[in-house]
Amino acid sequence: MVATDQLSRSFAALADPTRRAILERLAAGDAGVVELAMGSALTQPAITKHLKVLERAGLIARARDGQRRPARLQLDGLAPVDDWLRRAHAEWSHRLDRLEFHLAAQAESATHEEIPNA
Amino acid sequence: MVATDQLSRSFAALADPTRRAILERLAAGDAGVVELAMGSALTQPAITKHLKVLERAGLIARARDGQRRPARLQLDGLAPVDDWLRRAHAEWSHRLDRLEFHLAAQAESATHEEIPNA
Repeated sequence: MVATDQLSRSFAALADPTRRAILERLAAGDAGVVELAMGSALTQPAITKHLKVLERAGLIARARDGQRRPARLQLDGLAPVDDWLRRAHAEWSHRLDRLEFHLAAQAESATHEEIPNA
Repeated sequence: MVATDQLSRSFAALADPTRRAILERLAAGDAGVVELAMGSALTQPAITKHLKVLERAGLIARARDGQRRPARLQLDGLAPVDDWLRRAHAEWSHRLDRLEFHLAAQAESATHEEIPNA
């Protein structure tokens, strides 16, 4: 999958249970690769790879603290995803409303058509 | 990317600008492959492939209407994504609150330490 736009990068970063687990772990506190690898079945290089994906998506930032590079959640990184979903919800609900209106109008006209036979 | 869980499938389905454009088009009304291919740079087989991804993610349903199989938005399909994001927001905000509290406490204790020198 070629995900060049920011929104696609964010969705793609979230489309992996391991990366979501890393984000959930970071909600408990900043952590570096070594800490994230502990208590995980993943190797440090695998964790590093996932962190890069999360960083490119703007979902984490990595500080420089001597040798350590602890990862920190970036709440702002969810903004494009939130915006898209909010818009989708508004548009989709509107679509459902119109469908319901259309079906109600059809039912109404069907009732009127039946009147001559009543 | 191996996306076996429903949530990963949903995020992965949304991680593509073409698939998001298809969803936005469907918000204006149900449409089949032929209609979706019109006014698009994509071939019908490419559209069919994208629709399969969206269908597996539960974001659309495809009716049977003779030869046509119009695609329809499934608002419920966004529920797992919404739930995850709502939870992430709550946890991440909580994390930020605690960080701020921690920093405020540090600043407070730094001020107290300065008092003897005042």
